[in-house]
Amino acid sequence: MSFIDSWLRADIKEIDAYHVPQSDNLLKLDAMESPFPLSDKLISRYLEHLATVQFNRYPESRAINLQQTLRELMGIPAELGILLGNGSDELIQLLTLACGADATILSFEPSFVMYERVAKFTRLNYQAVALTDDFEIDLAKTLIMIDKHQPKLIFIAYPNNPTGNAFNRLTIEKIIAATNALVVLDEAYYAYADDSFLADVTQYTNLVLLRTVSKIGFAGLRLGLLIGSQDTIAELNKLRLPYNMNTLTQCSADFLLREKSQINKNIKRIIHERGVLSAKLQAIYGLKVYPSQANFILFKAPDAERLFAYLQACGILIKNFNNIPKLTHYLRVTIGDSEQNQQFIQTVKNFYD
Amino acid sequence: MSFIDSWLRADIKEIDAYHVPQSDNLLKLDAMESPFPLSDKLISRYLEHLATVQFNRYPESRAINLQQTLRELMGIPAELGILLGNGSDELIQLLTLACGADATILSFEPSFVMYERVAKFTRLNYQAVALTDDFEIDLAKTLIMIDKHQPKLIFIAYPNNPTGNAFNRLTIEKIIAATNALVVLDEAYYAYADDSFLADVTQYTNLVLLRTVSKIGFAGLRLGLLIGSQDTIAELNKLRLPYNMNTLTQCSADFLLREKSQINKNIKRIIHERGVLSAKLQAIYGLKVYPSQANFILFKAPDAERLFAYLQACGILIKNFNNIPKLTHYLRVTIGDSEQNQQFIQTVKNFYD
Repeated sequence: MSFIDSWLRADIKEIDAYHVPQSDNLLKLDAMESPFPLSDKLISRYLEHLATVQFNRYPESRAINLQQTLRELMGIPAELGILLGNGSDELIQLLTLACGADATILSFEPSFVMYERVAKFTRLNYQAVALTDDFEIDLAKTLIMIDKHQPKLIFIAYPNNPTGNAFNRLTIEKIIAATNALVVLDEAYYAYADDSFLADVTQYTNLVLLRTVSKIGFAGLRLGLLIGSQDTIAELNKLRLPYNMNTLTQCSADFLLREKSQINKNIKRIIHERGVLSAKLQAIYGLKVYPSQANFILFKAPDAERLFAYLQACGILIKNFNNIPKLTHYLRVTIGDSEQNQQFIQTVKNFYD
Repeated sequence: MSFIDSWLRADIKEIDAYHVPQSDNLLKLDAMESPFPLSDKLISRYLEHLATVQFNRYPESRAINLQQTLRELMGIPAELGILLGNGSDELIQLLTLACGADATILSFEPSFVMYERVAKFTRLNYQAVALTDDFEIDLAKTLIMIDKHQPKLIFIAYPNNPTGNAFNRLTIEKIIAATNALVVLDEAYYAYADDSFLADVTQYTNLVLLRTVSKIGFAGLRLGLLIGSQDTIAELNKLRLPYNMNTLTQCSADFLLREKSQINKNIKRIIHERGVLSAKLQAIYGLKVYPSQANFILFKAPDAERLFAYLQACGILIKNFNNIPKLTHYLRVTIGDSEQNQQFIQTVKNFYD
């Protein structure tokens, strides 16, 4: 036995490293990335801007300018506080670290896998409430679990990944009102959704939101934000590693995220494409297509495993859920640009023909 | 009482957020930054290189290219593994998360403050062994503490911050041999030191190293690395958040850190300046100047508090340790370029004249 095998926590030893599938030379429709690169004109202005970056100095710890730019992009009111992280992942971890030992984290299944994974990393208990067959929150079951486990944090992805739906608003409101937990609404897909709880953060003291720029064209930046009352953010900020946001990210995001009209234009294009793609998928006999409030579509397909392999052989990578009990035969495709979606649909059609 | 006050762990409530001093319009000699910016020629080549960055795609999770560049810059043998983090801070946190509940972290005082802070964040016990009066490790006392507390991790800054000395090598070897802990030698200042334990990592299975590019000109990048056996790194890698290194950092660091000869030239300049500055400080009557293996100098000064304030009033920011019991009357100055050091020395002289 090697040193590390005897040294490491047993529960970490038994898990696998997070798997990122090989995607070289594949059309990536697996990871909820935006298909739109920056325009050449924007890149050249951006590079001019970057010329002033001081690499030899530590970053500004609070990233004040970037916070302001995010406020303007997302319409975050001045009365709320913001905490920035290297993607939502770092903020999910910070939230779990804010809980004492033996705390329980509650979430739903199927949902974003990092809630459970990070709860494990930070040595907390994790409980999941199964979603109903149409991927809604089962309120009665959830209230029983809240009563039984007294969770410290409740993660609710809104809209939910990988199912694509936004849960019933009233159900969420009842959960917030029924718990002493800090409720974390993960609005990673806010840009593609009809509804948001941003205006509700000022109403509920135990509500915070997670957002990210990963799904609106900037997955490469790794920039997530936690939005809450000034009180809440000031206290949670103590757990932030002091220079977590590097200078390049601050400077780049601050510049690029001012392009609000271009970002919003791309969001509208994706929403339009989602409608087109959804209709075309539904027209394929045998597929069950779920409504989406996000930049991806979940669908159930006969022979899903083989369809997935066929797509990959044809150069298209989507997401296969065959290893998740409730989602066997389900696949998830990220909305690409018009041409990419067309290529995807044609390949699916070829498979079933 | 606000919601967060009743919700948050008591031990986090009672600490303050990490304080970064105001430094606008000041000559920064407080944070171990390199004084040397990139050359204009390098910047323009760098910006050309950056033009190809894909912001809309997630970063390469393992940052393979950057790992290779770091191997070449730092002479890390192929048989060792590397884990990258957003500065050493993230890696210190990852190491503490790898420990089970109730584990004890051992370090020394005075040393880098993040070991204790992160141990607290991750709900672990922290024990510090006081350094001797000349800032050496007290081996007998350390062995007693190891026996008593059975630490899971031992952090040893080598060279040590804020004292500047590299501890006795034999003492460290005896600690490594005497413990079941994973010993983490934090070589943040390796570039300015006469010795390193890099070659020893292959000898001791319970030894890993931390390094960073923050002190060699790239504090703005926030790039730290953990070096250990392939086994150890593969297991610890499970705790890494999957996309922790963003695309910009990967792409920028990979390009900039290939400038090995320029980086080494700047390191040599700092080592030279350290000798000059040290001699000039020693020549000032009343100052006690400590030998340094790093890019800063610790010194004890009569009227240190007023000297610090005077320097600040004259536009120079250094580090004041008046709030650390063992270091009252101690100040720490980062080595600047020749002109900056001259300005600093002249101001100190003016104060005492």
